[in-house]
Amino acid sequence: MNNFRSPVADQRFVIHQVLDAPRALADLPPHADTGAEIIDAILEEGGRFCDEVIAPLYQPGDAGCTFKDGEVTAPAGFKEAYLAFALAGWSGATAPPEEGGQGLPYVVDAALKEQINGANMPWGNFPLLGHGAIEALRQQGQDWQKQVFLKPLVEGIWTGTMCLTEPHCGTDLGLLKTKAEPVGDDRYAISGQKIFITAGEHDFTDNIIHLVLARLPDAPAGVRGISLFVVPKFKVDRDGSVGERNAVWCGSIEHKMGLHGSATCVMNFDGAEGYLVGQPHKGLSAMFIMMNSARLGVGIQGLGLTERAWQNALAYANDRLQMRAPEGARYPERPADPLIVHPDIRRMLLTCRAFAEGGRVLALFACLHEDLAAHATSDEQRQQADTVVGFLTPIVKGLLTEAGVECAYHAQQVFGGHGYIAEWGMEQLARDVRITTLYEGTTQIQALDLIGRKTLLANGAGLKLMLTRIGEFCRLEAENPAVIDLLPALADRAEQWRKLTAGIGAKAADDPALAPAIAYDYLFYSGYVLLAWCWAQRVAAAERSELPAAFKRAQRETANFYFQRLLPRCDQHAAIIANGAAPVTALSDEDIGASL
Amino acid sequence: MNNFRSPVADQRFVIHQVLDAPRALADLPPHADTGAEIIDAILEEGGRFCDEVIAPLYQPGDAGCTFKDGEVTAPAGFKEAYLAFALAGWSGATAPPEEGGQGLPYVVDAALKEQINGANMPWGNFPLLGHGAIEALRQQGQDWQKQVFLKPLVEGIWTGTMCLTEPHCGTDLGLLKTKAEPVGDDRYAISGQKIFITAGEHDFTDNIIHLVLARLPDAPAGVRGISLFVVPKFKVDRDGSVGERNAVWCGSIEHKMGLHGSATCVMNFDGAEGYLVGQPHKGLSAMFIMMNSARLGVGIQGLGLTERAWQNALAYANDRLQMRAPEGARYPERPADPLIVHPDIRRMLLTCRAFAEGGRVLALFACLHEDLAAHATSDEQRQQADTVVGFLTPIVKGLLTEAGVECAYHAQQVFGGHGYIAEWGMEQLARDVRITTLYEGTTQIQALDLIGRKTLLANGAGLKLMLTRIGEFCRLEAENPAVIDLLPALADRAEQWRKLTAGIGAKAADDPALAPAIAYDYLFYSGYVLLAWCWAQRVAAAERSELPAAFKRAQRETANFYFQRLLPRCDQHAAIIANGAAPVTALSDEDIGASL
Repeated sequence: MNNFRSPVADQRFVIHQVLDAPRALADLPPHADTGAEIIDAILEEGGRFCDEVIAPLYQPGDAGCTFKDGEVTAPAGFKEAYLAFALAGWSGATAPPEEGGQGLPYVVDAALKEQINGANMPWGNFPLLGHGAIEALRQQGQDWQKQVFLKPLVEGIWTGTMCLTEPHCGTDLGLLKTKAEPVGDDRYAISGQKIFITAGEHDFTDNIIHLVLARLPDAPAGVRGISLFVVPKFKVDRDGSVGERNAVWCGSIEHKMGLHGSATCVMNFDGAEGYLVGQPHKGLSAMFIMMNSARLGVGIQGLGLTERAWQNALAYANDRLQMRAPEGARYPERPADPLIVHPDIRRMLLTCRAFAEGGRVLALFACLHEDLAAHATSDEQRQQADTVVGFLTPIVKGLLTEAGVECAYHAQQVFGGHGYIAEWGMEQLARDVRITTLYEGTTQIQALDLIGRKTLLANGAGLKLMLTRIGEFCRLEAENPAVIDLLPALADRAEQWRKLTAGIGAKAADDPALAPAIAYDYLFYSGYVLLAWCWAQRVAAAERSELPAAFKRAQRETANFYFQRLLPRCDQHAAIIANGAAPVTALSDEDIGASL
Repeated sequence: MNNFRSPVADQRFVIHQVLDAPRALADLPPHADTGAEIIDAILEEGGRFCDEVIAPLYQPGDAGCTFKDGEVTAPAGFKEAYLAFALAGWSGATAPPEEGGQGLPYVVDAALKEQINGANMPWGNFPLLGHGAIEALRQQGQDWQKQVFLKPLVEGIWTGTMCLTEPHCGTDLGLLKTKAEPVGDDRYAISGQKIFITAGEHDFTDNIIHLVLARLPDAPAGVRGISLFVVPKFKVDRDGSVGERNAVWCGSIEHKMGLHGSATCVMNFDGAEGYLVGQPHKGLSAMFIMMNSARLGVGIQGLGLTERAWQNALAYANDRLQMRAPEGARYPERPADPLIVHPDIRRMLLTCRAFAEGGRVLALFACLHEDLAAHATSDEQRQQADTVVGFLTPIVKGLLTEAGVECAYHAQQVFGGHGYIAEWGMEQLARDVRITTLYEGTTQIQALDLIGRKTLLANGAGLKLMLTRIGEFCRLEAENPAVIDLLPALADRAEQWRKLTAGIGAKAADDPALAPAIAYDYLFYSGYVLLAWCWAQRVAAAERSELPAAFKRAQRETANFYFQRLLPRCDQHAAIIANGAAPVTALSDEDIGASL
């Protein structure tokens, strides 16, 4: 009912023909030998694992995890699939070989993540969300911590968590209360309650490594008083030997809207033994390391579920017979025409396709820049790539998760009443994708990050780089008949983007509410312009290729659909930005709710 | 966690001060004595029942109905609440006294329905969706059928269903296969399977009266071969005496995304005894009677859930402390500011308020015209009112259900991660409201109805009437300082609406795909203009009143928010309409899915 095939061929098209990634990777020392064939083989193999092993577990997995006496049991088959995944080395895809990883480029790993999330996003949360823990340990861990924890985490022998949220604080970590008391010998006793901990408890592996934000006794109030600790479920000595059970316990799992196959745990730390990671009171920077890694990953969850929505809506629209086409029967031999003849069904299908295929370019472009930021040979290249990643992260997270929510909605509409029924699977998709705009920073937080830290505070560095890229594309393709009709609109929107940003920048200092008041609309305006560029790139790449004519037609017309039907959303966002902050700030806090 | 208070005072404000409904009702013979005080007393009493009896059952009711051996058991408390509801006479609110009803105006009933749906929408489906059956019997039933069935249905001693959908057809009822064989004595044997039958089985009442669409042996193919039958669960004689169990059985209940408290049944008719309602092969007109009644009701479900989203999001935004206001701490005595200080939280709150309060005006305006259509003393008045109801029905259904989905989404975002957790209740709201854009005709079907049957085929009669109303309002209030800033935008949008419609009308004949291709955007363009008018009316009415100053400020600024932040959505819809059908029709059915 609810099927998924990893979009391997389209991923290859994006990586090779749209982004020309192998050429860029060839200049990066660790990836100099990662040729096109290796990339293709990995994508094929990953796709096979996802389609054959984890996709069939998606719908049954909605039965959910169970919790009993502090133990969590995942849905049937999840553990076996995890072990197969780890054994095949997928767990440490991007980690360097010396840590036990495969040393794959981030851009290839991102494509694998899309496959995993499209096939079975709740399952994917077990191996995927621990990557933030690995990053934090790698960048800020003490030597012994790296030696002891990294390899088992990379190899998937252990899994990792990020323990940030507490019942009274999520976004505002400055309020967190979990305490860390030094108990000598560089050890700390961690006490407090953390909630919403993905994969906080399970029986997949012998140990679980929690990265925990907590306060030292002498900590200043607020975010400048947060420190990071590594707290294993079973204590681990400096020589790597595993000792007794630590005082960290899963108190319950949440009853959630969806994502039932993923255990979302309340974790109680009762004086659990932990070890400081990085400097005292500098946990916030470690938190950002974990977060940024996770945010791109969640954006890719949105992408994977968009692809799944598109595939299923398309199949149903071809299968289900209902009414006749506007011009009269298009399939007179059948009792009715398939849904796909109806213009508004086509609108919803093409919207899904536009977000899936356009979003794929955007996400993989961002992740290719993770590779450049890590390994480009010049400081300037690394710096620029890092700026691009930072700028695009809230857009990929915000836009692609909201697109996922929207496309799951469309898939349900295409299925009609059956879209509401469990056995058809679209409602699970809608429930599962709904978490993506909430966790790892809501869309609101992404919007604030984009307009604030990533734009105004950065003097528009990221925006300028992206506008330069778009400008180069327009110049380069100015004579290309395949995209010539798209370029004026793309160039206009890009120029309007620049002006909108400059306008906000000019007023933001005098009006502190302005940027947060239009942040949401700025995020979407930005995202839609970028997707327009992505679609123009897809068309140009397809036309240059030897790919089938039907694919080229589909690319051209889906791009046209995007420009005619989705890009106009920029109009309302621009109008709203022009209207400034007053519409949301005029009322006092009390008057907003002044009812009769 | 998830509370609801019936918005009685605001409903009174809309009915009395915005719509001046009592004055209009006074001219209608059956309602000449329904004074303002009676209306207020009914709203108060209804609100008390909803807040005290059914609202507390909402969250526990999510545990769902159970099905065993053909029997359906509703969640704990549902049956008792239903019996109390029927005993108090609410079931037959609008039915004439001679049928055992209260003879209330539709506009008052609509307000009661909003209360019920806000308090407990799944529970509301037991008594509410049977009204279509009553309407069909009243308008097309034989005399003995009216005598035997109407009173128990009106009094809620029995409940009714609408059995339309079959596994292979929902929208396209021309495909339906259920058979009706005459067995003599004006009786028929009904055989077939119906799905998605709300309240098809339950133990609230001794009998359940199914209105069933089926085909007679000599029926032409398609929708012109459908007839309507009344099929009771227990056979009923012409003298009203109840006989043996009929051959209609509930085969199972659906596992759905939400609406768990409402039983959605598969009904199997195995030669069940039925009686023809209306003329042979004329079932489609009866179906439309049932449908139209239900569509406004579902729009009001969207409204009720929007109000619930607004109330809960507001409460949480005032309660939850997280971060500081953009200009710095607004509540320095607290560890952090409440969410309500944050501009994008305010945007979401005000969006909910704008849809709830503006939508209330629109829905009650439409339902007041149901009263005028039924009882106005001149043919012309009745005719015009009927045109208004017909025109507004797809807009109320389409816009207010989509607004409900959107506002449940906002409520979840305001709650952050807790918006995904069952105990906080917002995720239930999101799951429950999701059905409203699917059943009783998807949003797509509403959009086709609006642009097709209700606009192009009607020579724009409904649109003209509404434009006249808007024009009159603008003229009448031209000097009113309270709304003077809103009027130019309202007048411009109304004029653009007229032009857009004329433009579509001019091209539609030559381009049969045009109307269906832009129908969705036309529906929303229309809805947003109407809501702008509703909001201008609210402000004008509030300013003229003696109501509290804080309420007046909230009305003014929420209207301003609506005009500055939501009305600009018209821009994209207008742009999309201008782009015509080609973006969705250019690709062949095969090429839409042409992937690599």
